[in-house]
Amino acid sequence: MGKQLRLGAFLLGCGHHSAAWRHPDSPVERLGDITYYESLARTAERGKLDAVFCADGHSVREPESGASWFLEPITALTAMARATEHIGLVTTISTTFYTPFHAARLLASLDHISGGRAGWNVVTSMFDQEARNHGLDTMPDHAARYERAGEFVDVALALWDSWSDDAIILDRRGRFADATKIHRIDHEGKNFRVDGPLTVPRSPQGRPVLFQAGASEQGRELAARRAEAIYSVAYDLPSAQSYYADVKARIEHSGRDSSSVAVMPGLVTYIGSTPAEARAKKAELDRMLPTAQSIRQLSLFTGQNCETWDLDAPVPPLPDPELFDGPQGRYATILRIVEKDSPTVRELLGTLAAGGGHATMIGTPRSIADEMESWFVNGGADGFNLMPPTYPHGLEDFVDLVIPILQARGLFRREYEGATLRENLLGPETLNRSESQTSSSMHPKTNNTAYKVHRHITS
Amino acid sequence: MGKQLRLGAFLLGCGHHSAAWRHPDSPVERLGDITYYESLARTAERGKLDAVFCADGHSVREPESGASWFLEPITALTAMARATEHIGLVTTISTTFYTPFHAARLLASLDHISGGRAGWNVVTSMFDQEARNHGLDTMPDHAARYERAGEFVDVALALWDSWSDDAIILDRRGRFADATKIHRIDHEGKNFRVDGPLTVPRSPQGRPVLFQAGASEQGRELAARRAEAIYSVAYDLPSAQSYYADVKARIEHSGRDSSSVAVMPGLVTYIGSTPAEARAKKAELDRMLPTAQSIRQLSLFTGQNCETWDLDAPVPPLPDPELFDGPQGRYATILRIVEKDSPTVRELLGTLAAGGGHATMIGTPRSIADEMESWFVNGGADGFNLMPPTYPHGLEDFVDLVIPILQARGLFRREYEGATLRENLLGPETLNRSESQTSSSMHPKTNNTAYKVHRHITS
Ligand SMILES: Cc1cc2nc3c(=O)[nH]c(=O)nc-3n(CC(O)[C@H](O)[C@H](O)COP(=O)(O)O)c2cc1C
Ligand SMILES: Cc1cc2nc3c(=O)[nH]c(=O)nc-3n(CC(O)[C@H](O)[C@H](O)COP(=O)(O)O)c2cc1C
Repeated sequence: MGKQLRLGAFLLGCGHHSAAWRHPDSPVERLGDITYYESLARTAERGKLDAVFCADGHSVREPESGASWFLEPITALTAMARATEHIGLVTTISTTFYTPFHAARLLASLDHISGGRAGWNVVTSMFDQEARNHGLDTMPDHAARYERAGEFVDVALALWDSWSDDAIILDRRGRFADATKIHRIDHEGKNFRVDGPLTVPRSPQGRPVLFQAGASEQGRELAARRAEAIYSVAYDLPSAQSYYADVKARIEHSGRDSSSVAVMPGLVTYIGSTPAEARAKKAELDRMLPTAQSIRQLSLFTGQNCETWDLDAPVPPLPDPELFDGPQGRYATILRIVEKDSPTVRELLGTLAAGGGHATMIGTPRSIADEMESWFVNGGADGFNLMPPTYPHGLEDFVDLVIPILQARGLFRREYEGATLRENLLGPETLNRSESQTSSSMHPKTNNTAYKVHRHITS
Repeated sequence: MGKQLRLGAFLLGCGHHSAAWRHPDSPVERLGDITYYESLARTAERGKLDAVFCADGHSVREPESGASWFLEPITALTAMARATEHIGLVTTISTTFYTPFHAARLLASLDHISGGRAGWNVVTSMFDQEARNHGLDTMPDHAARYERAGEFVDVALALWDSWSDDAIILDRRGRFADATKIHRIDHEGKNFRVDGPLTVPRSPQGRPVLFQAGASEQGRELAARRAEAIYSVAYDLPSAQSYYADVKARIEHSGRDSSSVAVMPGLVTYIGSTPAEARAKKAELDRMLPTAQSIRQLSLFTGQNCETWDLDAPVPPLPDPELFDGPQGRYATILRIVEKDSPTVRELLGTLAAGGGHATMIGTPRSIADEMESWFVNGGADGFNLMPPTYPHGLEDFVDLVIPILQARGLFRREYEGATLRENLLGPETLNRSESQTSSSMHPKTNNTAYKVHRHITS
């Protein structure tokens, strides 16, 4: 069997199109209802996806136009863990607002509860409004945030390794654990002081799987050093290829095997039995978007007076980037969308409203599978971070219509290969060990009594 | 129906006797297995208990002699929430190590996930070893900790109230929420600066139920001002009565109705079909206690050389408290146990090893029900925080043998009265409102659409 795609579902509200909640069929009444998320996770597991993923933020933005956030992700994913058996559960935790002891403890506990399926999307957060819920006036600057993030991850890894695999003995007439195998970490760094050990004994994966999603220089460096999977952003294959080549080179440069790190760009899909039906699905959502506000935003993003534009006419020609003095990243994305898709103004607003600059594939299950395969075989992606424009239908369409085609082509698993997220995401040969144990290899995971018992019970 | 007992189960490892894990039947292999805790919660729910409760600590102590901690409590209780339908879920969160935004968010999310069954045991933590996992050299002093705790709780309450009950509109052609009903809190205090609002919209209970367990002057004052239930410690009825009278007076003094706050002392029960069988259950556990270490501890606690004492002879006479210059609290407890129960040395060690100074009732289901009733009707307790010496058997015995007697006497519910923890614990007339909404009473909980939908789905 050749190399296969890695696929995760990025769960967010009623879907990634910002008008998704306005659709008559939308599950918006269920945003506070955990059974909604559990059923999404079960659908994703039916599709044999590697993981479900929850983003997180620490401030409420524009509550009139949709849910900023609803449930806190660690608790929501814990419930999803208990509603599923195989799929990975990736939670976002901000290194700017948490501390490593809390984060390591919560993740290790989720890893136990899920039988080894926890992952951590390491983010540094963005908004001053978030900082002001955590005692700060403004966000620390970008460099300081990433410096803290690097130290934070190092401390979390050390805490996860603070219990050796074989620390727990359970000798009823003797010792519960071998204290010599439970180590202090005695970390004293610029940002943190943590003695350890962790209160949560070593979890099934040892170290929950690290995801990273920062695109800046520092974000890529952290990913190169520590990530096992990367959530990236690329609107088209050339930009995906350039990002892919860049981070894979950085991973090699930092002394790691780049084939053991999965690069997963975001992917918004509109799926129909004909191309026209797929386009109609997008058009239906695009029509639900309140235009006044999006047009005002678009004026900011392009430096044009978009209020005079005809919503259903093609986007007028836009000036070269050198002539635009606003934020360049967003403007480059807009130019790319216009060049690739020649959208109407309303279609452009809709594309921006669903995932922003992420890949957007609109078509039949077969044409979407073709496009995904093309990214995969042409060095654009190891897999995708699926961002369905609507939940649950957008995900159900993908699972029921696209997955079987990928499976038939040998591009995606028919059954989960391993028991843990790491085994599934990075290959069954992956061992759930700490670095120290990888080198000594005295106590492979499978010799750990508590772990075996655990696996037995939860599987 | 007269006033009824409030009963919760304090889940801890293999039970509250520190030798519980050594018992041949102990579930010690399952301490990392969430199905173990789920089945305990289901047993407690079968007994119609008000809540299950998890303690929490941030350091590993003496790992050779038993599990300090295993799963992190918020994640564990989230799983338990999904395995049950009615029972409350009380998690400990330290105000010294958390920040209010995190705590309020996690608790509100647990409240959503459980359909209104979340509670919070507010503690200030104790050990320098814990502080050193959170960036501190030593614990802040007692007064500073309680000052921070008071401000912490105030901020959490304000965050929970930052979304009005009717903030969410869900008008698909208009607004998701009414921004004028989502408030910043703009808190700037000595310990915290938090702008708000909370990212998690108002949860079914509005405010998760507040528990408090501090026995000091400051602990009692915080309880008087904020707690809806109090976990207390009392070895015998007279000390329970004196604590009960003291905190009830403080509650009244702080302008609240003391009958709406449940005082729940800890209770360790050994249950047998005869008194001898019950005593044998305790003796069996006591024999499993490694004595060398406990005897050394007892020497410290009493100022005597206990190593020369005969383990199976009665405890020798002990000097008056004035003549002992070690920690007075523990010594007073020991004198009380010796006076009340005339134990052998081994029995004393066993009693101290199970809940320390908490009430210990040993006997038949009927005699235990009698004793509980006597505490209840004589102003010693509104209910109990059950601390079975062993799990699951100690809890099963209580649920199957003692609960039916309490029910037959009209002292305990046969069915859950309400849908939320607050309704069950504090009476069905209790409304899940914020203080501001209690006074305006414009938007009682039951008019909240999202909430009704939620209740419908989860019940
Ligand atoms: C797919 C994806 C998901 C993300 N999820 C989050 C999130 O949940 N919370 C967050 O604060 N940032 C999130 N980010 C943003 C970041 O990971 C990162 O903090 C941000 O991009 C700033 O870092 P950078 O300057 O390195 O890009 C996400 C980014 C991507 C591509
Ligand atoms: C039944 C009970 C449970 C407790 N649980 C915890 C706990 O889980 N974590 C903790 O740090 N303290 C716990 N405590 C202790 C405290 O609530 C409190 O922080 C400690 O007693 C110090 O405060 P004080 O000086 O007011 O007593 C508990 C106390 C009791 C009686």
